[in-house]
Amino acid sequence: MEKAYVYWFFGLSGSGKSTLADALALRLKSLGEQVLRLDGDQMRAGINKDLGFSSQDRLENVRRAAEIAKLSLEQGISVVASFISPEDIHRRKVKEVLGAKVHLIFVDASIETCKLRDVKGLYQQQAQGNISSFTGVSAPFEKPMDASMRISTEESSVEACIDQIMKQWKEQNA
Amino acid sequence: MEKAYVYWFFGLSGSGKSTLADALALRLKSLGEQVLRLDGDQMRAGINKDLGFSSQDRLENVRRAAEIAKLSLEQGISVVASFISPEDIHRRKVKEVLGAKVHLIFVDASIETCKLRDVKGLYQQQAQGNISSFTGVSAPFEKPMDASMRISTEESSVEACIDQIMKQWKEQNA
Repeated sequence: MEKAYVYWFFGLSGSGKSTLADALALRLKSLGEQVLRLDGDQMRAGINKDLGFSSQDRLENVRRAAEIAKLSLEQGISVVASFISPEDIHRRKVKEVLGAKVHLIFVDASIETCKLRDVKGLYQQQAQGNISSFTGVSAPFEKPMDASMRISTEESSVEACIDQIMKQWKEQNA
Repeated sequence: MEKAYVYWFFGLSGSGKSTLADALALRLKSLGEQVLRLDGDQMRAGINKDLGFSSQDRLENVRRAAEIAKLSLEQGISVVASFISPEDIHRRKVKEVLGAKVHLIFVDASIETCKLRDVKGLYQQQAQGNISSFTGVSAPFEKPMDASMRISTEESSVEACIDQIMKQWKEQNA
């Protein structure tokens, strides 16, 4: 139970949050940990389908995810979460709910890179005027001042990013 | 993943839902299963603290719990849930979200027995006029027509109830 943590990846759409989160979840499981994966898209299709994309609704989106993470954590199950969490208030809410048990990991990639990747075709849809509130384009993304860690997905491979994360936690917990 | 299920205990306050759910969770863990425990009180202190006790809010309470159970289930983690779920619409919502993967277990004890037990002192508070919407007294509890199973906590010990549940699932899944 003591080694259970919440790993909260945040950043722009296309920055690589889900890819890193999936890879970290696999890594933790291979080390014998119980892991719950929480993802923004997954939750918007289920528990959060009553919520929109205003700053307030994004805050409620993040609050619910953090509360689920908390009850999982209390039962010794680690959580790997991927949410855009665009504003400082969103990250502060996560910290407020989870305290010292959360690692906030800023997944950094430039908006130009994210547009080029456009894995879900969302940047294209936005350019065609089909999405009104789109983080980094028509809605704010506030670069974090207080993340536990920053990972650039422009500079390193997925495996190298995960190695970097595992190394940092090991040093912190040594 | 195939053997992951949701075990959803429902019934009056004081019927023994949480006691049975805790015992079943322990039993499943001892068999090597990963288990998440979800409880009404626990969720009302966290993710559901924005909700009250109207029929509508109780439905949203149950919907969120069922959605959390679903995402846990999809990752091979069984869920043991204890919620009053007083009306048929609440149980139908659980079925709607979770389909064939949920076992609805009606924890049956008479209101007289529950009042005598009054573990949380809630029936006394209600009698003193401090609780306006109290299931079985001033708010409805609809006896289920369609539970997967009924367990009487007036007739059997906790261990005997758990044995009965395990036996029934084994037969169903044989």
